Amino acid sequence: MSGSEIPEPVTAVTELAGAWLPVRLTEVEQRLRRLVGEQRPPLAGDAASTLEAGGKRMRPLLVLLCAGPGAGEDAIRAATAIELVHMATLVHDDVLDAAPLRRGRPTVVATAGRERALATGDLLFSRAFALLAEPGSERAVRALAQASTALAQGELAQRQDAFDLGVTTERYLYRCELKTAALFECACVIGRERPGPEEAALLAFGRQIGLAFQLLDDVLDVLGPPERTGKARGTDLLDGTVTLPLIRAIEQDPELGRIDLRALDEAGAEQVCDRIAATGAPEQVRAEARERVALAKSGLEQASLPAEDLVMLATVADGVVERYS
Amino acid sequence: MSGSEIPEPVTAVTELAGAWLPVRLTEVEQRLRRLVGEQRPPLAGDAASTLEAGGKRMRPLLVLLCAGPGAGEDAIRAATAIELVHMATLVHDDVLDAAPLRRGRPTVVATAGRERALATGDLLFSRAFALLAEPGSERAVRALAQASTALAQGELAQRQDAFDLGVTTERYLYRCELKTAALFECACVIGRERPGPEEAALLAFGRQIGLAFQLLDDVLDVLGPPERTGKARGTDLLDGTVTLPLIRAIEQDPELGRIDLRALDEAGAEQVCDRIAATGAPEQVRAEARERVALAKSGLEQASLPAEDLVMLATVADGVVERYS
Repeated sequence: MSGSEIPEPVTAVTELAGAWLPVRLTEVEQRLRRLVGEQRPPLAGDAASTLEAGGKRMRPLLVLLCAGPGAGEDAIRAATAIELVHMATLVHDDVLDAAPLRRGRPTVVATAGRERALATGDLLFSRAFALLAEPGSERAVRALAQASTALAQGELAQRQDAFDLGVTTERYLYRCELKTAALFECACVIGRERPGPEEAALLAFGRQIGLAFQLLDDVLDVLGPPERTGKARGTDLLDGTVTLPLIRAIEQDPELGRIDLRALDEAGAEQVCDRIAATGAPEQVRAEARERVALAKSGLEQASLPAEDLVMLATVADGVVERYS
Repeated sequence: MSGSEIPEPVTAVTELAGAWLPVRLTEVEQRLRRLVGEQRPPLAGDAASTLEAGGKRMRPLLVLLCAGPGAGEDAIRAATAIELVHMATLVHDDVLDAAPLRRGRPTVVATAGRERALATGDLLFSRAFALLAEPGSERAVRALAQASTALAQGELAQRQDAFDLGVTTERYLYRCELKTAALFECACVIGRERPGPEEAALLAFGRQIGLAFQLLDDVLDVLGPPERTGKARGTDLLDGTVTLPLIRAIEQDPELGRIDLRALDEAGAEQVCDRIAATGAPEQVRAEARERVALAKSGLEQASLPAEDLVMLATVADGVVERYS
């Protein structure tokens, strides 16, 4: 975010949308800030730094876009709630990874310790559900609870697979569905007032761009550059998280499959990143992510959505794979 | 639990209630088991062991009692959800404390590691909200989300105070309200179909017995005996958690206020427990817990509740302070 109120990748879409979209995104941003500001210290500070670190606000953007210009207060609440859940999982993930930096800023776990970071995540999570507690919100509560369950299951699966260089593509994609795609799917339907015939298409769209998003994240972890991604290269390797660029690289350079990930230090992890890059695997995975985005877009075209919505969703989809952070 | 389907301290109340109460408690128990059984491994195993370790099911009992014999499916769901949130916080607390045992059994963090325990807690938490996602459930969702927020805030406050022997009684009680009493308050109203004149009295009842519950927990941490509490004496001291027995003991033995809690090992913690016990502080705190239970009961008598309900709630209140685990 660094300064501007509306996150950068969102700009391309807000230029296409009417004034309603930036107005609502700003409203979501203000609610997030208000909600965090209301908390007692030390949470107010811990959560505020997570919030300030910003991020792309992709999920709220999807909620608002898929809810459309006619949606009201419920969509704004849903957009805020989904970002709170996302923030909660980031704070918890950083606890597990003992990550020093996220988006170039110190993480809550780094500044305040594991204890406070764990409680901060729990608190952000419960605030999300508190926000949704309004009459008629049961679909939204269910959708967010199910996505949150998937997030935790994805995290569990990833930990289960840690340091296992034999992880298959299928298993990796299964993890990505739980860890990332579920919340994107949720974002595409949670702000809509009632289920409609477009819902299946929107869910499929959310799933594909969620997968593409994770694929690109994993590419960026290998390629960096750190000054753009805001974190060191190879952090996944150091955590023992085997991702698609490494799986594809092993197919071409089987010796990579015999590396002892547990023995890597930061310099070693960067060297492995270079070896992975040398196989061309990251570019191959980037191409796979783009294919998923293309699939996502073509799938939407078959749904009966207004042409304007199609253009905006396609722009969001493109933004998922054309980014560095 | 160890063997019997209905937890022990509940028995005194179920003997007073009609058949409806044991039937519903069993239903809650079955739903908890089903819910955990449905999960994929490794969660199914991790959560099942937390569930099997049992506990008193005090919160579901309160939900069902306060909802009354006329309540239906919503109350059973609320009772199940509140126990899931309670389980989630236990699993997360054990991560922070790196606790080896809870109720005499190995904790999730001890058997499966911090990563899996953190994700298990997140998952139990999200399952609680998923359960509540039904039409007309917004009050229940709000109540549980607010209680969950308080739990996290209480945890944050406790970590903030860690190793500080200057913690005041007021600050300690404030932490107990967040960490324990809020969920008891929630339990007393979450299963009731609509707000009524008794609600304020039930909330006050829940608050007092919640505080009494925490006071007694803190007494048991000092006095044990471990074979009944299922954990070593002095674990609070080792975590740096300064509780009322220690605060009261320092008033009488000021040298206790100069101990370096960070330097304690397990044997040292037991010795400090003996010194705290020698001041009579634990018995004093136990008496304070009993006073709160008396307050809780007399407060209820002024509310217009059926005489039968009063007797059952009074029995639960007594059970809060007459226990060893």
